[in-house]
Amino acid sequence: MKNSAILLISCPDRKGEVATIADFVYHHGGNILHANEHADEESGLFLMRVEFDPQDFDIDLAQPGLADFTKAFSPVAETFAMTWRLAQSAHRPRMIILVSKYDHCLVDLLYRQHSGELACEIPLIISNHPDNQPIADFYKIPYVVVPVSKDNKAAAEARIHALIEERRPEFMVLARYMQILSNDFVNRYPQRMINIHHSFLPAFIGARPYHQAFERGVKLIGATSHYVTETLDDGPIIEQDVVRVSHQDTVEDLIRKGRDLEKIVLSRAVRLHAENRVLVYGNKTVVF
Amino acid sequence: MKNSAILLISCPDRKGEVATIADFVYHHGGNILHANEHADEESGLFLMRVEFDPQDFDIDLAQPGLADFTKAFSPVAETFAMTWRLAQSAHRPRMIILVSKYDHCLVDLLYRQHSGELACEIPLIISNHPDNQPIADFYKIPYVVVPVSKDNKAAAEARIHALIEERRPEFMVLARYMQILSNDFVNRYPQRMINIHHSFLPAFIGARPYHQAFERGVKLIGATSHYVTETLDDGPIIEQDVVRVSHQDTVEDLIRKGRDLEKIVLSRAVRLHAENRVLVYGNKTVVF
Amino acid sequence: MKNSAILLISCPDRKGEVATIADFVYHHGGNILHANEHADEESGLFLMRVEFDPQDFDIDLAQPGLADFTKAFSPVAETFAMTWRLAQSAHRPRMIILVSKYDHCLVDLLYRQHSGELACEIPLIISNHPDNQPIADFYKIPYVVVPVSKDNKAAAEARIHALIEERRPEFMVLARYMQILSNDFVNRYPQRMINIHHSFLPAFIGARPYHQAFERGVKLIGATSHYVTETLDDGPIIEQDVVRVSHQDTVEDLIRKGRDLEKIVLSRAVRLHAENRVLVYGNKTVVF
Amino acid sequence: MKNSAILLISCPDRKGEVATIADFVYHHGGNILHANEHADEESGLFLMRVEFDPQDFDIDLAQPGLADFTKAFSPVAETFAMTWRLAQSAHRPRMIILVSKYDHCLVDLLYRQHSGELACEIPLIISNHPDNQPIADFYKIPYVVVPVSKDNKAAAEARIHALIEERRPEFMVLARYMQILSNDFVNRYPQRMINIHHSFLPAFIGARPYHQAFERGVKLIGATSHYVTETLDDGPIIEQDVVRVSHQDTVEDLIRKGRDLEKIVLSRAVRLHAENRVLVYGNKTVVF
Repeated sequence: MKNSAILLISCPDRKGEVATIADFVYHHGGNILHANEHADEESGLFLMRVEFDPQDFDIDLAQPGLADFTKAFSPVAETFAMTWRLAQSAHRPRMIILVSKYDHCLVDLLYRQHSGELACEIPLIISNHPDNQPIADFYKIPYVVVPVSKDNKAAAEARIHALIEERRPEFMVLARYMQILSNDFVNRYPQRMINIHHSFLPAFIGARPYHQAFERGVKLIGATSHYVTETLDDGPIIEQDVVRVSHQDTVEDLIRKGRDLEKIVLSRAVRLHAENRVLVYGNKTVVF
Repeated sequence: MKNSAILLISCPDRKGEVATIADFVYHHGGNILHANEHADEESGLFLMRVEFDPQDFDIDLAQPGLADFTKAFSPVAETFAMTWRLAQSAHRPRMIILVSKYDHCLVDLLYRQHSGELACEIPLIISNHPDNQPIADFYKIPYVVVPVSKDNKAAAEARIHALIEERRPEFMVLARYMQILSNDFVNRYPQRMINIHHSFLPAFIGARPYHQAFERGVKLIGATSHYVTETLDDGPIIEQDVVRVSHQDTVEDLIRKGRDLEKIVLSRAVRLHAENRVLVYGNKTVVF
Repeated sequence: MKNSAILLISCPDRKGEVATIADFVYHHGGNILHANEHADEESGLFLMRVEFDPQDFDIDLAQPGLADFTKAFSPVAETFAMTWRLAQSAHRPRMIILVSKYDHCLVDLLYRQHSGELACEIPLIISNHPDNQPIADFYKIPYVVVPVSKDNKAAAEARIHALIEERRPEFMVLARYMQILSNDFVNRYPQRMINIHHSFLPAFIGARPYHQAFERGVKLIGATSHYVTETLDDGPIIEQDVVRVSHQDTVEDLIRKGRDLEKIVLSRAVRLHAENRVLVYGNKTVVF
Repeated sequence: MKNSAILLISCPDRKGEVATIADFVYHHGGNILHANEHADEESGLFLMRVEFDPQDFDIDLAQPGLADFTKAFSPVAETFAMTWRLAQSAHRPRMIILVSKYDHCLVDLLYRQHSGELACEIPLIISNHPDNQPIADFYKIPYVVVPVSKDNKAAAEARIHALIEERRPEFMVLARYMQILSNDFVNRYPQRMINIHHSFLPAFIGARPYHQAFERGVKLIGATSHYVTETLDDGPIIEQDVVRVSHQDTVEDLIRKGRDLEKIVLSRAVRLHAENRVLVYGNKTVVF
């Protein structure tokens, strides 16, 4: 697959932004492949994703740190007060997976990565249980057990933090990791930690959502993938989906049907994130 | 369409119920067309819907009050402590619609009734606004305006109650009726008043659910049709559905997309109710 | 609603197109609201839709014929060999509806237009049956009956053609019009005649698709809205959707469930077309 | 999980069938858990599935060959000219998987079986390629490679046949097995061989359906699981589903999106078959 460059921009909405950015890319020899933008009326924010073919681009994008690109783009960025970053599709982001005992999302992500569908590296799996070591071994991914009990929460989190710092991942995925993380921990990784919640948020926040759904007698159940924030199950939503249920379905049936939803919703969210298609504004996402 | 008889039963779950009921129908000359049952493990309740062809049935089902059928079925019903009722598909139930200004659900229901898709009678439409008189006139349905203000709520409700008592409908439909009804009023019509709420309940209970959904940044919006109970938006759910939205959708887009959902979800629920396919247990429904 | 200008472009895919177009809009004072583009690798075609706020645009877009805009844009268009047109959202396109006896799509379109959801004018309804006169009268839309028999097909088509020429609509909608139109007729209105076919094309082309679907025992049925071309049910697809069915559904149930699909799929397609969001390339559509 | 007995019946539609069957179960001490039936008007066929708790059943269902049950039920069966069989949920059916190189369906089925979601045994995987040996080894399932070339088709099929006869599976699953099987082979296993076709049948029969779908410009793609019959992609459909696509999706995107569909549709079909929920009549299925 050819490399493409992806410029992600967020700034106050003003006239001339699309033209200026398109011009910048064009005059440096880039060929725009996709351009998407969104203006949020409430916040007055302009968000844009430009993907271009850098083959004839006259600035070196292989340069670590991208000093030349930064220098060239800075005048444009300053004019429009842009927050921006440049990603490249050839770069495979590093993703650490946290998981407990339930293995369906883990197995699904590992298969997708292995088959090439998810273009990322997995330097490490962290779990509070040893159960999923065999599948990690099968895919040759390092697997570290950090047991968590009510007495060692802080120490366990410190250990997880150290493991993450060592491997320097671009982002983390909570693939049914059943431990609540502290605010301090969460705040270290804004928009870099993706969770799967097994309900159609904001319905059934918190524990045992399938049991809650069963109790309420809903006719559809859902799953939601979102960035983790301080408030439980309240972060910016990346992707959601639902499946039909009926009075014939027991709680066990909801759990079974839900597993397929969780896998698909989480893997879509991870893919969108890894492909630099998600921009966050306020507590919402734009998915380009 | 041929008439069919529909026996709806709810009782404690015990061995021999299906056999006994099937036997009863068969030995009186009925031909079972459809039989559905559900055993709820939690409550130990057994619910059943038997639809049979009464052509050769040896008990007169045309008899008003069904005294003969009641007499014949009572021994069975008593043995199993059944709550039961017998409906007939040839009977077109009477449905009163309550509506405010938004007309999409009203227009939809009137068209479906007129085209024969909804096999029911509409003896009356009640509204707190005169706006929907023309479409009621087009379909030749009586339309009565009962204005509601914060000062006349009790009187208005009494007037609505009187109108309902006069027409003796089997059930009522709140087709986007934007007034909160008192508990006294609601309790008069248990499992006989169907509401459409414009969210995927239990998410976004209460006012302005599309605005709430927009604020939360969900990726799907929903609609829910349920029986009205004392607690707002909390009654037994009959039907739900969702549609995909994105950051490109404004609140106005959500409202527009939601209208199609509301129409379809409400009309499905009304149809299921009118065809005697919904049984309530606890705060849930079985939809056969 | 504010007016916006919509520039629709199709041309060979070359570097610099996005920049040049964005630049043109910007330097004439337009503020780009939405820009979407698609490059089709197979045909080497580039397609673009740019929506901009013309409030400060320095070329008069109120001018009939748009001579000034054409003059100003021609150099750009010629450089890139563009096929283009400029639409404006404040302009309500004129749409003629053709319909036979089935009224569900007609009733749906009329309601959506009346309620403001479809921003278009309906100068005329043409039918081969008088049945739908009352609903046309209710919405005060002229309704002309052109009977079609196997002996008068050519004359009937000539009459329809004359009626269309008189009213000069931007496009026509076949809202379950059950007559085959001649190639001559069809070819007069390329990409201007929208049909609804009651199957998931290319499955079940031709007559009685619900019966075909029932025979085949499919588990989902569909509806497809497409531009009419010479080959039956083969034109560029604008929108499709499906609904679940089961062995319990009779042909009549398929027809009933299908009606809701047809209404929604056709109304979405009409809306997309009326909002200038559909571009055709080869036998496919881009829906922006 | 408790054992339940499942009686599957197909016979001409006559009065008294439900009552007679329910009676039989009841009088032998069985407690009916679920009863579903379907009368097909066209063929005059009655199909029924009765699931009952055999705990107090007075006929020994542990008896191999079920001679006692057969003897007891024969009078009923003969009276109504029934084709019937008795299954038990505690019995885990044996399923052989045939697969080529694409591994997504195989990996999915193996995981579901391993996790307990699919209650069946997998005595063997047969493939025409060695590629999927490692995942078979991981799950400790025997894997035999039977290479197929245009010169050895008959011999290869004979070898596959021998392998199947050795292991005596209840059914086979073609989990993207890319070889056409001969009519002789297919006819040995009526309603016992489940295939996944990567289109919404009957659209895009035959080779490269995603390419066909891309060419046609459809807005949804599908997958279909069906029993294999002599006519290619024409057997009784068990399950179908679809997913939305757009002009932005390349053929590769269709293939990727389709993989998730294929996995879910095939695994649903396998589960329904393994749980004895599918009855075939003519070229259709009833799914209870």
